Amino acid sequence: MNSKELFSQIKSKQSFLCVGLDTDPAKIPQYLQREKDPIFEFNKQIIDHTAEYAVAYKPNIAFYEALGPKGWESLQKTLEYIPKEIFTIADAKRGDIGNTSKLYAKAFFESMDFDSITVAPYMGRDSVLPFLEFKDKWVILLALTSNEGSEDFQIIPSSDGELLFESVLKKSRQWGNPDNLMYVVGATRGENIAKVRALVPDHFFLVPGVGAQGGSLEDVAKYGMSKQCGLLVNSSRGIIYAGKDMDFGKKAGEEAEKLQKEMAILLEKYL
Amino acid sequence: MNSKELFSQIKSKQSFLCVGLDTDPAKIPQYLQREKDPIFEFNKQIIDHTAEYAVAYKPNIAFYEALGPKGWESLQKTLEYIPKEIFTIADAKRGDIGNTSKLYAKAFFESMDFDSITVAPYMGRDSVLPFLEFKDKWVILLALTSNEGSEDFQIIPSSDGELLFESVLKKSRQWGNPDNLMYVVGATRGENIAKVRALVPDHFFLVPGVGAQGGSLEDVAKYGMSKQCGLLVNSSRGIIYAGKDMDFGKKAGEEAEKLQKEMAILLEKYL
Repeated sequence: MNSKELFSQIKSKQSFLCVGLDTDPAKIPQYLQREKDPIFEFNKQIIDHTAEYAVAYKPNIAFYEALGPKGWESLQKTLEYIPKEIFTIADAKRGDIGNTSKLYAKAFFESMDFDSITVAPYMGRDSVLPFLEFKDKWVILLALTSNEGSEDFQIIPSSDGELLFESVLKKSRQWGNPDNLMYVVGATRGENIAKVRALVPDHFFLVPGVGAQGGSLEDVAKYGMSKQCGLLVNSSRGIIYAGKDMDFGKKAGEEAEKLQKEMAILLEKYL
Repeated sequence: MNSKELFSQIKSKQSFLCVGLDTDPAKIPQYLQREKDPIFEFNKQIIDHTAEYAVAYKPNIAFYEALGPKGWESLQKTLEYIPKEIFTIADAKRGDIGNTSKLYAKAFFESMDFDSITVAPYMGRDSVLPFLEFKDKWVILLALTSNEGSEDFQIIPSSDGELLFESVLKKSRQWGNPDNLMYVVGATRGENIAKVRALVPDHFFLVPGVGAQGGSLEDVAKYGMSKQCGLLVNSSRGIIYAGKDMDFGKKAGEEAEKLQKEMAILLEKYL
């Protein structure tokens, strides 16, 4: 999928919502535990009820890896169940030396058929470039994350006055282009989203931290929207755990719809 | 395992060798392909022939993840086959927000029983701390890696004149202690190993980059050795692919022994 196709889906759904499939066996409704693959059954119902409002799905790989081989099977089945036109993100935060990154890329882009993977930048270009060699696949590079610890290193000012996440953006924008490289940009500081947008005017951002982590959707749109929207705003817990009983799918759909309606207004206002 | 136990193993084996189990199905001897689990059969023979010379084994998780669910099974079997007194490292380079890092920790420390995991520092403290909560388990934090791209960000000088990897060391040494926190320190620049040693005098280093990547074992010992040795020097390809035929195990053992003998001399010289 390229950025044009992604933008056209955003326009037709009037949404830039990404649903995070961070499915925790301890948090899914009791009655599903009887199923052969409770994780997949849960995801299936979430997808059924949210697909009309979402342009992307993002399973965080840790939730599946923690379950061993059967977790990987649930992940694979989930991925196959997601409608083809919806963008898929393996939230894996991988990154290793060249040959090894290539293996991770094969795992997520070939063995599985994800459209994109999140990658950590610390090891530099040869840890990122192997992922960019796959046609129609994307790297989503960590730039400015939404967690507390993002302050530890990401905002260290260099001797040139550049914050570390700015150095990451400036270097990495030469490695890819707006059709194969996105950035993770947390929602928790509006002014920083503006700084990132100034450095990479045309790249898509994957934005965590709206809702549970306290970021404002209005600020994200105001400071982050590009000519092609350029935003995928993620919500995980707020949607998938909106309900606790048999109607959890319906509740998830309602939360997704609520966000979609807010997004439609913001697209009207800022695009 | 604590650092004292690790040091006692180093002294008794006169070795600080870590063998990297980066097992690639395309590179293992043809005849093994007939086996039900060629990867495990390969690892088994490597372990049989190198265990007396090695104090640690380090499977790079990408090699197993790339093979899907059956790769995870090969990894699990390999881990169980490694003699209990030998230190095990899941080279996974994980790191995510708190709750998610905890899931990765459970995957590698509980579902599997690795002694340690490599972790990327970019997301800061809450991505690292959850791994440190497990008793007798270790984080091996990326500080200064041995790949080309390590120059992109790790040596950016801050406005205080501190290189990024130095900031990583200074902050993170407050998160753990020499009994639960090691650092990845590449062998390719001797003077940098000395800089790292000055900042964390008592922590163990996992040192890649000797051999294939051009680092000198003598320099690593000269600049990096601590009072408790404090070094685990990794060799992967140089050992596991030393032979291509039925005698690959024997050849691997010979290479491991060669390194062990060099290490014995260096322990005598610098400890």
